[in-house]
Amino acid sequence: MRYLLKISYDGSNYSGFQTQKGLHTIQEEIERAVSKVNNKDTHIVATGRTDKGVHAYSQYAHVDIDVDINEYKLKRALNSNLPDDIHIISTKIVPDNFHARYNVKSKEYRYYINLGEYNPIDRNYVFQYNYKLNVERMSEAIKYFVGKHDFRAFVTENKEKENCIRTITKASIMVDNNIVEIKFIGDGFLRYQVRNMVGYLIKVGEEKVSPETVIEVLESKDRTKSGKTAPPEGLYLYNVEYKEE
Amino acid sequence: MRYLLKISYDGSNYSGFQTQKGLHTIQEEIERAVSKVNNKDTHIVATGRTDKGVHAYSQYAHVDIDVDINEYKLKRALNSNLPDDIHIISTKIVPDNFHARYNVKSKEYRYYINLGEYNPIDRNYVFQYNYKLNVERMSEAIKYFVGKHDFRAFVTENKEKENCIRTITKASIMVDNNIVEIKFIGDGFLRYQVRNMVGYLIKVGEEKVSPETVIEVLESKDRTKSGKTAPPEGLYLYNVEYKEE
Repeated sequence: MRYLLKISYDGSNYSGFQTQKGLHTIQEEIERAVSKVNNKDTHIVATGRTDKGVHAYSQYAHVDIDVDINEYKLKRALNSNLPDDIHIISTKIVPDNFHARYNVKSKEYRYYINLGEYNPIDRNYVFQYNYKLNVERMSEAIKYFVGKHDFRAFVTENKEKENCIRTITKASIMVDNNIVEIKFIGDGFLRYQVRNMVGYLIKVGEEKVSPETVIEVLESKDRTKSGKTAPPEGLYLYNVEYKEE
Repeated sequence: MRYLLKISYDGSNYSGFQTQKGLHTIQEEIERAVSKVNNKDTHIVATGRTDKGVHAYSQYAHVDIDVDINEYKLKRALNSNLPDDIHIISTKIVPDNFHARYNVKSKEYRYYINLGEYNPIDRNYVFQYNYKLNVERMSEAIKYFVGKHDFRAFVTENKEKENCIRTITKASIMVDNNIVEIKFIGDGFLRYQVRNMVGYLIKVGEEKVSPETVIEVLESKDRTKSGKTAPPEGLYLYNVEYKEE
């Protein structure tokens, strides 16, 4: 049976989601739990990876389980074998051809920035910028990311041969109690893309560049034109929508 | 010069506030930073202690500094010598007879409980109860704590000889998005008192006891009548008010 797992985690103590030799990853912990329940080495296929220090409110992964176990018991069995910073929110039986990455319709990422006093309690969960930003200008700038664009200028890795065209369907910023919340919904995001877009929005908020320059940077397709990568602790994989079969 | 420090911290990685031989405490870290700035062994006097795993949005402490340094530079110097889970929010010159504990007018504690799905991101910051509670009944029960009472039944330590009479001036509960927020404001709180009161409120919310039984338990002055101590991670020293001199 193929199951779809909905997963939340605190990424603070991991070297990212994806298994990497010699590093402690979230995938490795989940596969350890799944293998225990399935009584054999079992791999999972996730929606996508998240980087070191990035969190998820809903990451998904599919997995094939041979033992006879219902959805609720599978959830319980997995959670009892997982560390307390990774949690299976739900498990659901899906068709055998369901694919946690290929069937994605859209993903939502959120990013949090603290403009107020440094907050030690949130240090791993909200980027502690701790200065003022012109959020009105950032709200103007973020609109230019919406639509179908070549996001090459906002991708950190060398992606010369890769297609960097993606569509962002919604993007918004709000500020409440000195916490800026930035949302991006799109069909897919490239590595470091959200953190690089946030980095550029911060540059706009610092009034170092004007909001419209987002257009020029996108058109340049040149990574050196964008700016700093925002730190991982403010980033959350917030939601994933799947295509109806 | 005597300074009043306003301090916030994440208590997750400490054995509480107060210095204890062989244990890693918040006071020890602050005194290390203060001693470095003051060029000699320097002690601080805090508003009160918080227990292992308890957090503070505003703890206060007074300290005597001999070196000539202004308030802003002292804040900066201390923060640069503190770990990232402890932060000095402000420093303020106070009269030489100001006392961070004796001059307290009132303290506010807050406690957070998650009634929804287990959240790994909040595991050290919100008590993961993860079941329903009857919050209406809890709101009714909490009113009985308000006023001048002998809180002996809600104190864990053996306090036979100690005066356990305290006054709670305000107490309230609200729930938002499955997170229960409980506030207590009073002239002072005994060790474990807030966590024991919360523990009893949970028992009320579980419909194991009725709201009015708070009165009986207070009157009994018997610790065995109250219930479980709520875990530390949901508790915050939220605010301290000082008497006007």
